[in-house]
Amino acid sequence: MNTTQVKAYGAADKDADLKELNINRRAVSEKDIEIEILYCGVCHSDLHTARNDWGGTLYPAVPGHEIVGRITKVGSEVTKLKVGDLAGVGCLVGSCSTCDSCKNDLEQYCSNGWVGTYNGPDKLLGGHTFGGYSEKVVVDEHFVLKVPANLDLAAVAPLLCAGITTWSPLKHWKVGKGSKVAVVGLGGLGHMAVKLAKGLGAEVTLFSRTPDKIQDAKDLGAHNVVISTDEDQMNAVTGEFDLIIDTVPNIHDINPYVATLNYSGTIVLVGYLGPLDPFLNTVPMIMGRKSIAGSLIGGIAETQEMLDFCGEHNIVSEIEIIKMQDINKAYERMLKSDVKYRFVIDMASLKA
Amino acid sequence: MNTTQVKAYGAADKDADLKELNINRRAVSEKDIEIEILYCGVCHSDLHTARNDWGGTLYPAVPGHEIVGRITKVGSEVTKLKVGDLAGVGCLVGSCSTCDSCKNDLEQYCSNGWVGTYNGPDKLLGGHTFGGYSEKVVVDEHFVLKVPANLDLAAVAPLLCAGITTWSPLKHWKVGKGSKVAVVGLGGLGHMAVKLAKGLGAEVTLFSRTPDKIQDAKDLGAHNVVISTDEDQMNAVTGEFDLIIDTVPNIHDINPYVATLNYSGTIVLVGYLGPLDPFLNTVPMIMGRKSIAGSLIGGIAETQEMLDFCGEHNIVSEIEIIKMQDINKAYERMLKSDVKYRFVIDMASLKA
Repeated sequence: MNTTQVKAYGAADKDADLKELNINRRAVSEKDIEIEILYCGVCHSDLHTARNDWGGTLYPAVPGHEIVGRITKVGSEVTKLKVGDLAGVGCLVGSCSTCDSCKNDLEQYCSNGWVGTYNGPDKLLGGHTFGGYSEKVVVDEHFVLKVPANLDLAAVAPLLCAGITTWSPLKHWKVGKGSKVAVVGLGGLGHMAVKLAKGLGAEVTLFSRTPDKIQDAKDLGAHNVVISTDEDQMNAVTGEFDLIIDTVPNIHDINPYVATLNYSGTIVLVGYLGPLDPFLNTVPMIMGRKSIAGSLIGGIAETQEMLDFCGEHNIVSEIEIIKMQDINKAYERMLKSDVKYRFVIDMASLKA
Repeated sequence: MNTTQVKAYGAADKDADLKELNINRRAVSEKDIEIEILYCGVCHSDLHTARNDWGGTLYPAVPGHEIVGRITKVGSEVTKLKVGDLAGVGCLVGSCSTCDSCKNDLEQYCSNGWVGTYNGPDKLLGGHTFGGYSEKVVVDEHFVLKVPANLDLAAVAPLLCAGITTWSPLKHWKVGKGSKVAVVGLGGLGHMAVKLAKGLGAEVTLFSRTPDKIQDAKDLGAHNVVISTDEDQMNAVTGEFDLIIDTVPNIHDINPYVATLNYSGTIVLVGYLGPLDPFLNTVPMIMGRKSIAGSLIGGIAETQEMLDFCGEHNIVSEIEIIKMQDINKAYERMLKSDVKYRFVIDMASLKA
């Protein structure tokens, strides 16, 4: 298969800083769309993959799955978009399209394994997929999203992962006007959960460990902030929430949050992968028909729905724009939660 | 308030065998129904309460919340039933009727505290409520169920707790034709879960630790039995089930069952109260939007719905009838799981 060499930024091994390298993009086939990447958001998964924190990283690792740009080529059978259109690509660039999950527009739960935008199996070129820290990307049109033209394009990028990761559970658990939603953690995911839940008409509470987030949360649209280390404040919201979106990426005790769920309420974990330590107590779950759930990004149809909703409601991510060359410094700042709330790479810097 | 003395069976303290004693039942007021108890099922909660295994038992403790009998008196404002009708009483005899849960027919999640049929606060007589191990009971008509006349009355009794405890999650999680349901454990709750899920049109699998349950499960209507200690059998059902009803009352590892849920599937714990040890792993929950939930008995409206359904589908519990005087021996056998599948006391023995 013909390929085109493009500039990218990636890690040569788990201990290496990211630096410039060249990768190959496949030729545009009938159903493919080629996108000139204008901005790419920086997700915690990028850092964890580059450093092989979860194991399984293939090198060179080129992260980036919050991609927005402009279409430069389309295949002969592409109908969804055309050259010159704005477009987005999120965490998924492939799935089997035949399993029950795929048929139900939930490609992220593909039972035959979906293909990640980076570090996934590249079935066409062989090897593994390379993400959005690059000049261009070629993607099957099914996995390309339309981007509302009225939004700040750079600030749209994080919607493709942080946005859809919180949107999907908000919609699945039917949040709407009158819903009482709480969000645990105010990072890239958490700040989008606050904005989207508010956009859907919910009353939104932020759980935070420290009072220094109170004003930030209110500025983002939260109606209330509960300091989770304050027992009186926690007791005051016992049985309060229909849905809690827990975005904390580290091990933490979720039992105190379960207590704040209303009967039939659900706490959805979207950030933390690992054992629930300390032990989850089933007593309040049984006494109030409460659920503990997980949720992974979102399907393509619901990602489009989310982007359209954001277009209508003028919702974007809060971002700090960086140059490609500053990615290693940005990773260090992310580890210290020193970003409000998402770094976005201006890909013009890679060409410069 | 006027009271009537009736014979009952109860425990004087946590170490005492149950024996005959007298208790007072309140006079029948406007909305009350007096029931001559004909049969009373024997639930594990009876034993745990009598022996104060969960703490908080008030003595004398008169257990029994799977009550069926015939109405002997009704108050002047009672419209639901009349003297001579068959009637049932389950785990609940009171709730606030004003909170959101009560208004939504989910009295078991009453935010002001529901009144248990035994060991609950008796707001009219003072002290605590006494259960169905007795000649008669007086209950507000709201908490009295109609019993289908076509069913074996003794075998209806366990529907009032074991039946509704499994029915409520089957209905809440929308089990119907085409659903794939698994049941963990084949005791009083588990055998009802199998029968009710099958009655609702689901394909039903039993998880059992030992092959000696295979024939029993199939006799009860299960389509498949998976031996949970056999790794190959467990792997063969990875991603298989929409809903799992876990009836096991003891601490156990639920992670292997989570692996057998389909995407968006839920495992509902109805038997085990305590910490989930070993730790629950969030990875499969997130990767498949899976939920871990609890569920408690059921509301009055859904209990009636379940009884009506059982009448239409000729579903009852499998029982062994005992005399009241044999209750202490029955408790010992229950602790060894030596009952298929529920003891039911013939209350005529108490009068003899």
